[in-house]
Amino acid sequence: MASASGNGGSNGSGSPCGACKFLRRKCAADCIFAPYFCSEQGPARFAAIHKVFGASNVSKLLLHIPAHDRCEAVVTIAYEAQARIRDPVYGCVSHIFALQQQVPLYLLSNINHAHEFLCLYISPRKHRE
Amino acid sequence: MASASGNGGSNGSGSPCGACKFLRRKCAADCIFAPYFCSEQGPARFAAIHKVFGASNVSKLLLHIPAHDRCEAVVTIAYEAQARIRDPVYGCVSHIFALQQQVPLYLLSNINHAHEFLCLYISPRKHRE
Repeated sequence: MASASGNGGSNGSGSPCGACKFLRRKCAADCIFAPYFCSEQGPARFAAIHKVFGASNVSKLLLHIPAHDRCEAVVTIAYEAQARIRDPVYGCVSHIFALQQQVPLYLLSNINHAHEFLCLYISPRKHRE
Repeated sequence: MASASGNGGSNGSGSPCGACKFLRRKCAADCIFAPYFCSEQGPARFAAIHKVFGASNVSKLLLHIPAHDRCEAVVTIAYEAQARIRDPVYGCVSHIFALQQQVPLYLLSNINHAHEFLCLYISPRKHRE
């Protein structure tokens, strides 16, 4: 999962952030996207987010999240967007299915039983007394 | 995960599908949402999808998916939308993290070792010979 690091925005550098560059709009000083989408790699990453969620929806979502949580939110939104573009039917839900199938619940419940067996046979005195 | 069953739409019943009811628009005979959002429960389910993804984005997505895959796509989109509303920062990605943490990789790799140990101690003749 790629991290959301951004140094773009119109603040200081003069160039618009990656999101505003993609949207071909002026990047405001308080642009909600600027901290997370740099001017160089940002547009490509924002394209997927815009296609799947829409810039407006993501903007609203971020505005309702505390500033210190927004970076994590952008990372997970980008992850979901990229997964949905790769797999339009299942998106990142396919990863959940894969994880669930990889480790069926019966296997998890059996780990404790296996551990108990191991303890019994490896240290018979300690556990059988 | 809820299934996407729908019997709404303007086809036959006369009432709009759940999506069009939520969007307060006329439900066309070939409405892309009608098969998946019934008139009764559909609006509430569509509300989450519209808030997170936007009706237009989902409509475009479904149009690019073969008809026989659309029901599954609606189920996973609804799942992602509901998860994002419940957890705006991580959405359904939190489920992936939870699954990954629940069964760390070292535990998986240890299952084979545990199994080997068990075989050795439970059937010593067969395996030690």
